[in-house]
Amino acid sequence: MTATDNKRRIQLSHGGGGVEMNELIRKLFFKYFSNEILIRDEDAARLDLQGPLAFTTDSFTVSPRQFKGGDLGKIAVAGTVNDLAMAGAIPQYLSCGFIIEEGLTFAELESLVKSMAEELEKSGARIVCGDTKVVPKGAADGIFINTSGVGQCIASPSWKQLEVGDRILVSRDVGRHGACILASREGMVLEGDLASDCATLWDDVKRLLDAGIEVRAMRDATRGGLAAVLNEWAASRELGIQVQQDQVPIADEVQGLCELFGFEPMELANEGTFVLGVPADQADQALALLRQGQQSAAIIGTVVEQHLGKVVLSSPWGSQRYLELPKGELLPRIC
Amino acid sequence: MTATDNKRRIQLSHGGGGVEMNELIRKLFFKYFSNEILIRDEDAARLDLQGPLAFTTDSFTVSPRQFKGGDLGKIAVAGTVNDLAMAGAIPQYLSCGFIIEEGLTFAELESLVKSMAEELEKSGARIVCGDTKVVPKGAADGIFINTSGVGQCIASPSWKQLEVGDRILVSRDVGRHGACILASREGMVLEGDLASDCATLWDDVKRLLDAGIEVRAMRDATRGGLAAVLNEWAASRELGIQVQQDQVPIADEVQGLCELFGFEPMELANEGTFVLGVPADQADQALALLRQGQQSAAIIGTVVEQHLGKVVLSSPWGSQRYLELPKGELLPRIC
Repeated sequence: MTATDNKRRIQLSHGGGGVEMNELIRKLFFKYFSNEILIRDEDAARLDLQGPLAFTTDSFTVSPRQFKGGDLGKIAVAGTVNDLAMAGAIPQYLSCGFIIEEGLTFAELESLVKSMAEELEKSGARIVCGDTKVVPKGAADGIFINTSGVGQCIASPSWKQLEVGDRILVSRDVGRHGACILASREGMVLEGDLASDCATLWDDVKRLLDAGIEVRAMRDATRGGLAAVLNEWAASRELGIQVQQDQVPIADEVQGLCELFGFEPMELANEGTFVLGVPADQADQALALLRQGQQSAAIIGTVVEQHLGKVVLSSPWGSQRYLELPKGELLPRIC
Repeated sequence: MTATDNKRRIQLSHGGGGVEMNELIRKLFFKYFSNEILIRDEDAARLDLQGPLAFTTDSFTVSPRQFKGGDLGKIAVAGTVNDLAMAGAIPQYLSCGFIIEEGLTFAELESLVKSMAEELEKSGARIVCGDTKVVPKGAADGIFINTSGVGQCIASPSWKQLEVGDRILVSRDVGRHGACILASREGMVLEGDLASDCATLWDDVKRLLDAGIEVRAMRDATRGGLAAVLNEWAASRELGIQVQQDQVPIADEVQGLCELFGFEPMELANEGTFVLGVPADQADQALALLRQGQQSAAIIGTVVEQHLGKVVLSSPWGSQRYLELPKGELLPRIC
């Protein structure tokens, strides 16, 4: 490595708390995340906010860091913005903690930070405080990003409010992110267009809330996929959830990949797909609103008083089976 | 590794979003961090809080994870609690994001979580939301912890309020954490008692505020040490800071180690030591209050109108030199 190369890579001194770290913060982070709170305040940001608030955190370790439809930076912002949105909160303020492996190129770091800034614009959320650690070569794999988020709640979705008869909807076809990461790891050149669903969901949530849809429960189907969300709801609420298997939207390329590798699409992670429960008489309106975002949105099931704590898949031929909470390794470093 | 050993270590499935992760959350994190918000809420915590609020984040990567006077768990809680306290905020709510390397023992994870729980008790802060990622062997070094914090502000310390004539104090002797980590890495068996200063500072801050001390500026002297805090204040406020070198408290064992390795004690990181600026007529009262916590607290300097943007050290023999903002690697993975 030449001296010039060295200057183009993150070094331990960039996490040392001195001159080099200050430069990194000012020249890179302040440049892309610039807002008056970030620049005005010291270690902690000062926020004028009235409760109730939602507060959430996620660390992102996805590998590879660049994938079709997104990258680590995009997912790190969209993920926490979505957690706030799912809590019925306006995605307002994010923190950002970088753990960087010595030797990461400045070019890649800048590209990730730029991607974060672009994703922030989609919801209007702002990064108001941050932290940078640099660890020696071999102590981390490239870069990990933690984001935490705070925002004012304007709705209170919760599985606790699910009632027998409520309809279950998904905001688009499921399993894309998991399938996309799987495909990139396997180095597959895919025909068709298998991109991750990675996206900020605030616009969709806002459209539902603005229209007065009574969102009983809402959750983005990340790790563990649709299967994890529905099982957690059924188990926590001690009711059953009946799903019409042929109503669950799954793209052909996702289905194909799952058949090849033996995965269940409903267990694959999503990064821009959410599940919601609404009163039966609002289901069609909610569906129409979701389809303004994604044509593949669908009503997939109903809350029932049988099968307490279980999720039951009904096939078009009348057979039934349980959809279980996923178990085992699934895909490591999916998000 | 036998099958039994395998069961006693964190596996990739513990981050998969399914059965194993749910068990880890319930049996370990809920057990030690138990509080009604953590258990009641879903992905995001719902907080009833009125602004102004402070919001802060830090990732912790300290190596070794166990050191004299603390461990990664203790530092991860104290660090963020202290950031809130330094912003004049009550340390109320913390998030917690674990990035765990596959193969970490359950015993070590439990010991760190227990240590976090013990440190939380010192300020009354609560962990209300969390996230767990597990990365394959070699993709991280053991475990990294991010904590973010939210709390209501009851004071507004800021370097912006520093005035010429204000006195600068430190809450105890400086450089202990840096020296302690340095010593453990060098495998030194130290005589004396060189423990890290790692500690929750909320009690000390509260004592000052309760007594009506007008804390103009306040900052814990972490990475970059006392030198970094004073230089940032002097540069930001565009005033000078004059420090009496012989008034800066430094333990003999820290001084000795620094002479051996060529470090400047005022550049070494602290994890339970803060710097504050107060009006001259409140300096003695502030000192007395700080000494209720640590006998080594001291008044070390004055804000002056000379040396704009600089920190000047005056020796007992009348000579003067600049104390610069630290530069270079210092100690990687100090916190």
